[in-house]
Amino acid sequence: MPELRHNILTREWVIIATERAKRPEDFARKVEKTRLPDFSPSCPFCPGNEHLTPPATYVVPDDGAWRVRVTTNKFPALSRVGERRRVSVGIRRMVSGVGIHEVIVETPAHNLTTALLEDSQVELIIETYLHRFRFAAADPRVEQVTIFKNHGESAGTSLEHPHSQIIGTPVVTTQVRDRLVNAVEHYDEYGECIFCRVLEMELKEKIRLVLESEHFVAFVQFAALTPFSMLIMPRRHMAVFSEMRDSEASDLARILRRVLAKLYHGLHDPDFNYTIRTAPTDHLGVKYYHWYLSIIPRLTRVAGFELGAGMFINVSLPEENAEFLRQVAA
Amino acid sequence: MPELRHNILTREWVIIATERAKRPEDFARKVEKTRLPDFSPSCPFCPGNEHLTPPATYVVPDDGAWRVRVTTNKFPALSRVGERRRVSVGIRRMVSGVGIHEVIVETPAHNLTTALLEDSQVELIIETYLHRFRFAAADPRVEQVTIFKNHGESAGTSLEHPHSQIIGTPVVTTQVRDRLVNAVEHYDEYGECIFCRVLEMELKEKIRLVLESEHFVAFVQFAALTPFSMLIMPRRHMAVFSEMRDSEASDLARILRRVLAKLYHGLHDPDFNYTIRTAPTDHLGVKYYHWYLSIIPRLTRVAGFELGAGMFINVSLPEENAEFLRQVAA
Repeated sequence: MPELRHNILTREWVIIATERAKRPEDFARKVEKTRLPDFSPSCPFCPGNEHLTPPATYVVPDDGAWRVRVTTNKFPALSRVGERRRVSVGIRRMVSGVGIHEVIVETPAHNLTTALLEDSQVELIIETYLHRFRFAAADPRVEQVTIFKNHGESAGTSLEHPHSQIIGTPVVTTQVRDRLVNAVEHYDEYGECIFCRVLEMELKEKIRLVLESEHFVAFVQFAALTPFSMLIMPRRHMAVFSEMRDSEASDLARILRRVLAKLYHGLHDPDFNYTIRTAPTDHLGVKYYHWYLSIIPRLTRVAGFELGAGMFINVSLPEENAEFLRQVAA
Repeated sequence: MPELRHNILTREWVIIATERAKRPEDFARKVEKTRLPDFSPSCPFCPGNEHLTPPATYVVPDDGAWRVRVTTNKFPALSRVGERRRVSVGIRRMVSGVGIHEVIVETPAHNLTTALLEDSQVELIIETYLHRFRFAAADPRVEQVTIFKNHGESAGTSLEHPHSQIIGTPVVTTQVRDRLVNAVEHYDEYGECIFCRVLEMELKEKIRLVLESEHFVAFVQFAALTPFSMLIMPRRHMAVFSEMRDSEASDLARILRRVLAKLYHGLHDPDFNYTIRTAPTDHLGVKYYHWYLSIIPRLTRVAGFELGAGMFINVSLPEENAEFLRQVAA
């Protein structure tokens, strides 16, 4: 019989379709991806084509050939200039669309992906995330900073050169707002961080763990919405991403690369998104929220029931996903 | 400058990307769809192939050749038999996966779509929705009934023969639960149904209206999450779908067909989902919730920012969407 599981972090019910569940290997890519060249003359993110993007806002290293390069998004979702104005008329609420929207080019190589990078390169990416996060958070118009990556066409990417994006919005985003409300209510009732509690349970039950490192734990959630989605959660309680220490940042780089390598080798380079879900920028030190990185492989389509009900049908077993990934070499 | 708009029904902020906005005609399908035959020998929903599906649970008319046919889903997400059991262990909450999952075959013709059906056929479909909704609602294990349709591959359909689905879940689904909480708080504060208020505003402002009928209004929301998404809302306050009267049901059939015909002709048969968002089955007569039908054309991809932040970037203008659709003949 199928099982409904409750996601305690989001209060979402998920149908775990035990009887329709596919085996982990059924989710592997069937048709091989076209091989890309390591340089593409028309790619705005390839070295030598820097004139095709807006000027860099941050470059590592700051002299010689760059290894990571940040620019304003050429087609920003939010305007970098202008004042934050809030308008309320009757039931209408509007805020002017100002904020930060940057692109982080993760490597000079056109055809690599996180799974195939050197650890030291991923460390540079995470350091860059921290730097640009702090830059965006310092903008008084910005309330929330979202870092995310789209890998592959079904994950919504438009440029194949490895890159991620950072958006600083003038309001707290919906998903974080809902998680904050839920987390503060849990703290109110039990005096504990709900995220710390989930982590403790997963470490005790072990069956959904994918990888552990000194400072982080990667696991499939008990009520995962979609096949092979995972969280990478810091062991130490921290509300905001920028509270991370340097030693934790390099550890995050290593575990992230290894988890993505497990997906890459185990499921043959699936399309995926990842995102860092952090408390709003002014929530430094709050006791009830705990940032984490969420990885969402795009292996199934969102159809009418998910859209209409907001209830996901997961056609895989979280415990089987985790066991499968544990056995893939990283 | 882009504009952030607040969706008062869901409390979601949407970025209306005014400067990146595409023109309505840019969303039209570019590559023509393969023409389908009116009968497919291997299709389980085509007449003569009834043995390929589970037995019918409802057929219209009940003698002679069927025009609408309902069966249990061959691969149900929920089990029809079994008891609803709820388990709480620590922070874990589980419910046994029991409920109703039926498929409604909307026409004997393999290659038609709602836009191309006779009004009388769409009336039969809506009557069938009502009948099966009441059947599912009468099951004491069912708390919420969701009716939805997936049209086209990117809307998640696996069988091209026109059909919709109905799922009766043993818990209230997330999206309805969130809307209920929001609506009850609005009622608490202002003593009015938030949905009635939105409808009143749209009728007054007129610029986002697509089509009006005696009993329903079709409009693009002020803070629509995605291009050309629309609501069809009953003018009369009703919390639960099954409170609809017969005259309203046939009017809904006509406006639904015409709105979908506008999409079909204006955007060249786009993939879409629609769903009926109703209060839970035991909420008959409540004053704060108001059911509606939501149409979501699948014209853009959900990428990392939408997944990670829950904040949508709408690359079209709701007012332009509505104006464009008003001018398409239905």
